[in-house]
Amino acid sequence: MSALDFEIIAQDPASNARRGRLKTPHGVIETPAFVAVGTQATVKGIAPAELARLGIQVLIANTYHLHLRPGEELIAELGGLHRFMGWPGPIMTDSGGFQVFSLGAGLEQGVGKVASIFPEENPRGGHLKAARPGHSLVKIDEEGVSFRSHLDGSPQRFTPEGVIEMQRALGADIILALDECTSPLHDYEYTRRALERTHRWAERALRHFQETEPQARQTQALYGIVQGGAYEDLRRESARFITAHEFDGFAIGGSLGSSKAQMHQVLDWTVPLLPSEKPRHLLGIGAIPDIFQIVRRGIDTFDCVIPTRLGRMGHLLVCRPPNYRINITNACFRRDARPIAPDCDCYTCQNFSRAYLHHLFGAKELLALRLATVHNLRTLAKLMVQIRRAISEGELEELQRAWSA
Amino acid sequence: MSALDFEIIAQDPASNARRGRLKTPHGVIETPAFVAVGTQATVKGIAPAELARLGIQVLIANTYHLHLRPGEELIAELGGLHRFMGWPGPIMTDSGGFQVFSLGAGLEQGVGKVASIFPEENPRGGHLKAARPGHSLVKIDEEGVSFRSHLDGSPQRFTPEGVIEMQRALGADIILALDECTSPLHDYEYTRRALERTHRWAERALRHFQETEPQARQTQALYGIVQGGAYEDLRRESARFITAHEFDGFAIGGSLGSSKAQMHQVLDWTVPLLPSEKPRHLLGIGAIPDIFQIVRRGIDTFDCVIPTRLGRMGHLLVCRPPNYRINITNACFRRDARPIAPDCDCYTCQNFSRAYLHHLFGAKELLALRLATVHNLRTLAKLMVQIRRAISEGELEELQRAWSA
Repeated sequence: MSALDFEIIAQDPASNARRGRLKTPHGVIETPAFVAVGTQATVKGIAPAELARLGIQVLIANTYHLHLRPGEELIAELGGLHRFMGWPGPIMTDSGGFQVFSLGAGLEQGVGKVASIFPEENPRGGHLKAARPGHSLVKIDEEGVSFRSHLDGSPQRFTPEGVIEMQRALGADIILALDECTSPLHDYEYTRRALERTHRWAERALRHFQETEPQARQTQALYGIVQGGAYEDLRRESARFITAHEFDGFAIGGSLGSSKAQMHQVLDWTVPLLPSEKPRHLLGIGAIPDIFQIVRRGIDTFDCVIPTRLGRMGHLLVCRPPNYRINITNACFRRDARPIAPDCDCYTCQNFSRAYLHHLFGAKELLALRLATVHNLRTLAKLMVQIRRAISEGELEELQRAWSA
Repeated sequence: MSALDFEIIAQDPASNARRGRLKTPHGVIETPAFVAVGTQATVKGIAPAELARLGIQVLIANTYHLHLRPGEELIAELGGLHRFMGWPGPIMTDSGGFQVFSLGAGLEQGVGKVASIFPEENPRGGHLKAARPGHSLVKIDEEGVSFRSHLDGSPQRFTPEGVIEMQRALGADIILALDECTSPLHDYEYTRRALERTHRWAERALRHFQETEPQARQTQALYGIVQGGAYEDLRRESARFITAHEFDGFAIGGSLGSSKAQMHQVLDWTVPLLPSEKPRHLLGIGAIPDIFQIVRRGIDTFDCVIPTRLGRMGHLLVCRPPNYRINITNACFRRDARPIAPDCDCYTCQNFSRAYLHHLFGAKELLALRLATVHNLRTLAKLMVQIRRAISEGELEELQRAWSA
C-alpha cells in the first residue's frame, strides 16, 4: 500500500545505527543518507547531473517556497517537481511548518533550529533574519495558519489538508504533514498546546491523504512529524501519538533544544519509540560531528543546508576536528598549491588548488561558490558511503574515532 | 620559430572568410573560432570540463586583472595559468591596454568599444562605469602607463617590456603587445600621436620578446595590435607598420568607431593589409549579426563577453533576428514548457524548460546564471561549427541568410 519499501540490511552491534534500502517511486536511497537541500527546486549552483555524480541520492525541496513561487499548479502543469527541476531521483518536500515558524516565533525571538547557538545551522529556509520582537507575521488557529508572504506581503493560508494538496501537485516521493514548530523560548504550556494542535493536524493530514485520491498513495509517501520541543514527556507523547497512525515514515522536527546535548537527548527519548521497520528522518541537522551522533541513534535520513551554505561562505569541509572545515578566504591559503583535501575524489580537488579557490573567492567569482559546494556535497556523500559500509562491517565506532582524531 | 602553426584549409569563394587550423602549444583551434572570455582566470560560473564539452576551444584571460589579483608571480609559482585555472587547452592573454583605457579616457568619457551604442558590448573588462568627466586614473608617457588599481587604489606601472614579462609568467599560448586604446571621442591629432606611441611600444615589446629568453618563443606567440581609431589613414598606416614586424599574428583593437558600419569599414581598411598566412584576431566583438560580418572580412578568432554577460542578465541567444535573444525574465515565459531553443543540444535545453529558467532567474538562484551561460556559449560554439563547415562547402552566404531570415 505504501509508496515506499524499506528494508534494513544491517544493524550496528554497538549502537542503534542501521543500514537500509529505501525504495521510492523514483529510485532507491541507500541509508543512512544525507538529503541535499534544494529549497526553491534547485540545489544552489549545482546542476542535477552533477548531483548524481557527487553521489547525492535524494533532495528536499520546500512547499512554502514553491507555493509562493512559482506555485504548485505551475509545477504540476509542467509535469511535476522531478521534471520541472530536471532531477529524476527521489525528492522529499518539507511541509512549510518550519518556514511559517521562521516568520512567526523564529522571527520574533531570533531563534532557529537549535536556538541560535549554531548560527550557520538555521536550516530549512534561509530567510531567518535577526530578532524583531513583536514582529510576528503569523497567526495560528485551530484550522490552520495565516501568514504573509515574505516575497510580496500577500496573505497566505496553510491548512493540513491544503498542504497535502500542494505537495500532491508538486509530486515529491516523500511528503510531510503540516506541523507547528515551537521555539526553545516557548514555555511548557505553549509547547503542549501547540503539540496537541500539531497532532490534530497530523490526523487531518493523514485522513485527507488516505481518503482523497487513494491511488496517489502508490506514488507518494506521507511522513508524520514528531514535535514536543526539548520536553521529555512531550517528545515521548508525540512519538507515541504519531507512530500510532499509519504514516509511511516518521520525521523528527522542531526545536531540538539549545545545545548539542539536548539534541542528543531529544533523539534518545524519541527514536526508540519509532517502529524499527519504518524510515526515520531528522529535519535540519547535518554538521559532520552530528552525523555520527544521529546515525548511532538510528536516524535513516537527514537534511541540512550546512554543506551548501557553508560552501558558499568559503568554508570547505575537511576531516579535521573540531570544526571539520577550513576557511579558504584566509590569507594562509593564498599560495597553497594543495587541493582542499588530499584524498578527495571530487572535481574540485582533482583539478584545483586551494590558492585558486582563494583567488576565486577573493575575486567574488561565481565559480567559487560552485566548486566549494561540489566539494562539500561530495564530502558528505562520501562520509555516508563510509558510514553505510562501517555499519555493515560492524566498524562504525572505529570510523567515528578516525573522524574524531 | 613561432609557437604557432597556422594552416588555411578552405577559402570562401564569395568573401574573405577562410577556414583554418591554428596549432598552439596547448592544442589546435579550428578557425574561425569564438574565444570565451575568462578575465579573472575563470569563465564566470562555468567549470573548465564543461567548457570543453560545450565546444569552447580557447579562452582569453586578462593581464591587467591577473596582475592586480592574484599576481602573475603567484600564478607562475603554481604552474602557470593553464594549471592554475584547470584549463588544459589554448589560452590568450590580453595585454591590459584596453583596461587601462577603461580607467582613463573610457572612464572620463563614458565610452567603451564601439562608443556606447551597444552598452552590453563594453568588453575586455567589465568594470567600465558611467562617465566621470575629468576623472582619469591614468597617466601615459613615452615609457609606459601609470595608473591606480581599481581594487585598492595602489599605484601601478605598465610598460611594453613589463607586460611581456607578466604574460610570460602567466604562460598563455598567445600574448598581446601593450597598446594604447583611444576613444572615438579623441580627435585625429591625439589618435595619431597615440598610434605612433603604440607603434614604438609594439617594437619594444617585440624586441623584448625576441631578445630575452629566446626559448620562450617556442611556447608563446606574440600578436601585434593594429590601432588607429576610426581614421582610415591611421588604420592603414598601423596595419602596414605592425605587419612589417615579425609578430606571430595580428589583432585589431581599440575603438571601432561609433556604429556597426564604421566597425565594418575599419575591418575593410585593415584586414586586406594583414598577411594572409598569419592568424587574425578581433578584440572584443562577437554579437551574432557581427560574427558573419567579421568572418566574411577574414577574421580568424574573436573574443567577446556578450554570450556570458548577456546570459547572466537572462538574455538567452536564439536564432531569431534582429536581436537573436529572448529575455527569459519576461512574464510570457512563466508557463512556457519549451526549451530555450528547440533544436539546441546543450545541457540546459536538453533538461530544462523556459519556465524553469524563468523561475530560477525570478528566485535569483545561482543555477540560473550557469544554465543561461551554458546555453549561450553552446550556441556560439555551434554557430562557429556551422560557419567553418559552410566555408569548406562554399555555403557561407546561405548560412548567413538562414540566420537572418
